[in-house]
Amino acid sequence: MKKPEKLSPSDVTGAWAIVPTPAKPDASDWRATNTVDLDEAARVIDGLIEAGVNGILSMGTLGEAATLTYDEKCDYIAAMVDAARGRVPIFAGTTALNTRDTIALTRKAQDIGADGTMLGVPMWCAPSMETAIQFYRDVAEGAPDMNYAIYANPEAFKFDFPTPFWGAVAEIPQVVTAKYIGVGTLLRDLAAIRGRIKLLPIDFDYYAAARMDDSVNAFWSSGAVCGPELTMYIRDVVQRARETGDWGAAKAFQGALGPTAAPLFPGGSFKTFSMYNIALEKARMNAGGWMVAGPCRPPYHICPEDYLAGARKSGEMWAELNNVIKAGGPYPWEVN
Amino acid sequence: MKKPEKLSPSDVTGAWAIVPTPAKPDASDWRATNTVDLDEAARVIDGLIEAGVNGILSMGTLGEAATLTYDEKCDYIAAMVDAARGRVPIFAGTTALNTRDTIALTRKAQDIGADGTMLGVPMWCAPSMETAIQFYRDVAEGAPDMNYAIYANPEAFKFDFPTPFWGAVAEIPQVVTAKYIGVGTLLRDLAAIRGRIKLLPIDFDYYAAARMDDSVNAFWSSGAVCGPELTMYIRDVVQRARETGDWGAAKAFQGALGPTAAPLFPGGSFKTFSMYNIALEKARMNAGGWMVAGPCRPPYHICPEDYLAGARKSGEMWAELNNVIKAGGPYPWEVN
Amino acid sequence: MKKPEKLSPSDVTGAWAIVPTPAKPDASDWRATNTVDLDEAARVIDGLIEAGVNGILSMGTLGEAATLTYDEKCDYIAAMVDAARGRVPIFAGTTALNTRDTIALTRKAQDIGADGTMLGVPMWCAPSMETAIQFYRDVAEGAPDMNYAIYANPEAFKFDFPTPFWGAVAEIPQVVTAKYIGVGTLLRDLAAIRGRIKLLPIDFDYYAAARMDDSVNAFWSSGAVCGPELTMYIRDVVQRARETGDWGAAKAFQGALGPTAAPLFPGGSFKTFSMYNIALEKARMNAGGWMVAGPCRPPYHICPEDYLAGARKSGEMWAELNNVIKAGGPYPWEVN
Amino acid sequence: MKKPEKLSPSDVTGAWAIVPTPAKPDASDWRATNTVDLDEAARVIDGLIEAGVNGILSMGTLGEAATLTYDEKCDYIAAMVDAARGRVPIFAGTTALNTRDTIALTRKAQDIGADGTMLGVPMWCAPSMETAIQFYRDVAEGAPDMNYAIYANPEAFKFDFPTPFWGAVAEIPQVVTAKYIGVGTLLRDLAAIRGRIKLLPIDFDYYAAARMDDSVNAFWSSGAVCGPELTMYIRDVVQRARETGDWGAAKAFQGALGPTAAPLFPGGSFKTFSMYNIALEKARMNAGGWMVAGPCRPPYHICPEDYLAGARKSGEMWAELNNVIKAGGPYPWEVN
Repeated sequence: MKKPEKLSPSDVTGAWAIVPTPAKPDASDWRATNTVDLDEAARVIDGLIEAGVNGILSMGTLGEAATLTYDEKCDYIAAMVDAARGRVPIFAGTTALNTRDTIALTRKAQDIGADGTMLGVPMWCAPSMETAIQFYRDVAEGAPDMNYAIYANPEAFKFDFPTPFWGAVAEIPQVVTAKYIGVGTLLRDLAAIRGRIKLLPIDFDYYAAARMDDSVNAFWSSGAVCGPELTMYIRDVVQRARETGDWGAAKAFQGALGPTAAPLFPGGSFKTFSMYNIALEKARMNAGGWMVAGPCRPPYHICPEDYLAGARKSGEMWAELNNVIKAGGPYPWEVN
Repeated sequence: MKKPEKLSPSDVTGAWAIVPTPAKPDASDWRATNTVDLDEAARVIDGLIEAGVNGILSMGTLGEAATLTYDEKCDYIAAMVDAARGRVPIFAGTTALNTRDTIALTRKAQDIGADGTMLGVPMWCAPSMETAIQFYRDVAEGAPDMNYAIYANPEAFKFDFPTPFWGAVAEIPQVVTAKYIGVGTLLRDLAAIRGRIKLLPIDFDYYAAARMDDSVNAFWSSGAVCGPELTMYIRDVVQRARETGDWGAAKAFQGALGPTAAPLFPGGSFKTFSMYNIALEKARMNAGGWMVAGPCRPPYHICPEDYLAGARKSGEMWAELNNVIKAGGPYPWEVN
Repeated sequence: MKKPEKLSPSDVTGAWAIVPTPAKPDASDWRATNTVDLDEAARVIDGLIEAGVNGILSMGTLGEAATLTYDEKCDYIAAMVDAARGRVPIFAGTTALNTRDTIALTRKAQDIGADGTMLGVPMWCAPSMETAIQFYRDVAEGAPDMNYAIYANPEAFKFDFPTPFWGAVAEIPQVVTAKYIGVGTLLRDLAAIRGRIKLLPIDFDYYAAARMDDSVNAFWSSGAVCGPELTMYIRDVVQRARETGDWGAAKAFQGALGPTAAPLFPGGSFKTFSMYNIALEKARMNAGGWMVAGPCRPPYHICPEDYLAGARKSGEMWAELNNVIKAGGPYPWEVN
Repeated sequence: MKKPEKLSPSDVTGAWAIVPTPAKPDASDWRATNTVDLDEAARVIDGLIEAGVNGILSMGTLGEAATLTYDEKCDYIAAMVDAARGRVPIFAGTTALNTRDTIALTRKAQDIGADGTMLGVPMWCAPSMETAIQFYRDVAEGAPDMNYAIYANPEAFKFDFPTPFWGAVAEIPQVVTAKYIGVGTLLRDLAAIRGRIKLLPIDFDYYAAARMDDSVNAFWSSGAVCGPELTMYIRDVVQRARETGDWGAAKAFQGALGPTAAPLFPGGSFKTFSMYNIALEKARMNAGGWMVAGPCRPPYHICPEDYLAGARKSGEMWAELNNVIKAGGPYPWEVN
């Protein structure tokens, strides 16, 4: 089996794009097979890398790990790996309903050429902390050559990923990074991790996280596929600030970026967002205009229209900012 | 593909045993393969049928649908079907992470010879009511010759199965029965269902449910594998009461049966029970002494010892009552 | 201090009406004082007793214990006590934010002439089971001559009232009854209680509860104020069934009664209902036409209009059945 | 009625100490009256002001707003006001079960001399966003001369204080500040607030919040009563960093401060902490050694011993750091 290059936390830097699994027009129909639009997938991966992203995360919640078939997952991983041509690491989600299936799928992803997995916890039963920790230990033992990104989504996985969890999984050498949610407990979790895992905040929180702790020099971005230049700008404006110690421009820009997130969350609620996560993110991405994420696979293809309208608004706001970046200015946020 | 006999709600009567998937001694190790003890499985199915159960439900939560591999599921279904030899219907759980995998697995189960599926809702995202209803519609359309038992577990499936849901799924002809939880909304749900689904309460609630509504003449029993004679007694004492109109004996017996459930639920909490459902149920079953349920498959093999002690106590109490039944009395509950 | 007559669980039988605290037209305005419509209160209490109810419960959630001022509570209790003239027991809710205020208010209610209190748990912090049990012990010690009805509302009190709780509070001699929710754990809780507390199910569940256990011969009814004759009919049809052993008429009637509850619960959800409990119940009662419950006191006077419409529908359905009862038939449910 | 000086958000700066209500030794007994140790209260308020705190917040959850009697609240407010002698603003919690009682208590607090109220939402029913917003509007209208700190505790108040809520209450002129929890949505909420409310993060999060946004120049500290010099140091090290642009010392110090919080939260859970908030905070404060918080008032005086041990550990760790500060170094965190 092909061995991916062993990454260390310090190898994980910059902007890691989270990608949807592009779907053909009929993908909401349960009769559809081979629903992955592999051409669009290749185009998206190449486009993101050309734009400058530092890594790819895929097949989490919005990446429809839940709703892709096994064959589709394999085809999609292959398409991403081929398109990437080793330029950046490709992490492919391998979350499954149990430890053994997860190990098997992780090995398969490795065999196809993925560099890592973005891995959540089996969610049939709510896991205790001991269960969650042992799960990661077991999978790392079963597929020891893979690189692991812990996928910390409290709604999907019925688990709140408390600080002691982070302290424990930091002892697993294969765990190098984590798709992290929120910054509320970031400093606490960073202290527990002792530099052994690179935590990735969301693009919207990157400015905040980077100011909180200098070690935060990477983030995940689902916005990248609404327009990747903006994601690059997020990365670079923070990097410049870190280097110069002058955070003024980064902060002013954050004032323009932040509001684009709001309409994505119905009533401001992450819980409600999580019920319709896939439909909302894909509606946002389709509205961004940079890629064709396509429809949602069943059973998660149903969503109230007013929620979708908010998501589209969020995508349009991102695209608008992205156009400003692409045009090289003028930057309205610098006026203020 | 083999077509199972079409069942109607009136075909679902009596005691439906819920069985664990017997595990070989090393099944908690993620390296283990072929973990199903097929001999024990065959013995258990035959033994239950010989004891008189009216149907078999399998591969729900305690049946480890989450943690069995695809091949193990196929082997296990085949073993159950072979052992049953058509004497009672075999329902095999086919819950998966999405609609298409569910349809494929349901068709496979049908092909192997299962008569029906006990089917929950994909649980990565919490489903809206519309999502849950459409899921059952789609699967029934995709595997239209199967018989369906809805598996209504609010903790596993992030969904509370409200009354309007029951009204809607009652319109799906293939849905004939449901593994139902609690009796709190039973009358309301029965009204919504209008006779089109046979709701099965748990053995501990059967007396209560049968008194609430004469149409309740079937139940599920995970206790059956702690000692099936007791399950038969539950069925028959209620049936006699229904026929004679004299519920005295049934009620007195319920007074002895009820307390055997209590130690299974840590601190009286269904939520806590649900985190450790598999470990607790298998500990109880192993303590019952009638079958070897074996260890739990990963990642759900970890459970606090004091919770396990309660579960074993519950199994021993069941076994004790079962021995009284087998011995033909004297019945201590009749003294009062 | 006046001592109420000591009740025992066997003294609690029949229909216990739960009453709202009638509000004057301006009661939603925070400037309003003396918002209790004492004339309507007196009329309602007298009317219910004349109709035949066996006891009165007041000042729970829908009775606006949260939103009445201290003086209004005292005036209202006095009005109820005066109107009742000792014909039936009056229980006045004395739930407060802590043990000492609860004891003081309970003593005051006793002093005014209330026979008992319907008492929930302080809800600022979610109580552990130990905290909840000790709370009832302390209050019973502090106001030892009162009769206690435990008010078991899991949403209001952040506590799920598990079976071991019932076993423990059954040891407190002053606790004679409980406003109980649901019948899902009724048999288990009855077993834990060993006859020392009379559990009252809601009117909609009374038929079910009475069939489950012969000892259930009392219930609470918030519907009583939508038309008390129907509440009396619920009581009597079950009583006749219990005496004759023929439950046919009671069951047929339950089939007509049950559906009147459904529109009261938005989307079938008790959690959503609980957010708007007061507004929904008062809208239902006002629509019933038998009494003027009036508007809601702040801050709980805001409710989505479509939820209110459902509640009104529920009240109208009750009133319609009540009219059938008052007219002495024909009873449409007997046709089937 | 005495009018407090009108504060604006810019008047709220620096360290705002949150104080417990000191209790006499018998305060856990429901028979106890006048349980407030007014001498200790005066000593604590004076000591905090002498140490340099910029404001006082009182009578929230750990301040036992739930469990103090009305008279005790009045006496305690008077003692604080007297001790403060106008040197810093005194905010006294006036959260009650409804709008009218809240207005009355807020007016009373104003009359006694409090400068503001720290105000949560009535928690009998979970409030909708509309209900919560209208509540603050009504109270501000009813006691218009007070200064308001919104008390945003999601567990106590069954409300998650989403971003649109902050946008709406920012329109109420009397709302000047907020005891804020977490920093997860801080930037979003700051954007919604548009400078009209000064949000106070907890001391443990102050470094992070201040780096996230320069406008964050105030915080609340329950640690202040474990040793106020440390709270002053938190304030000043951040202020120096803000002025010089060199955050190195502040960050190094945060590395020493952060871990003192961990043992306060059982299993890392805020939900569990919230059940035992008062007992845990008072155990921590008593262990800090700077003040005598005393026992907890009923019903919240019961807590598992191992949780208390963690809380005491947290208090001891704070005291240890405080001693380092008081001794003027050497500062172990600067070594690294």
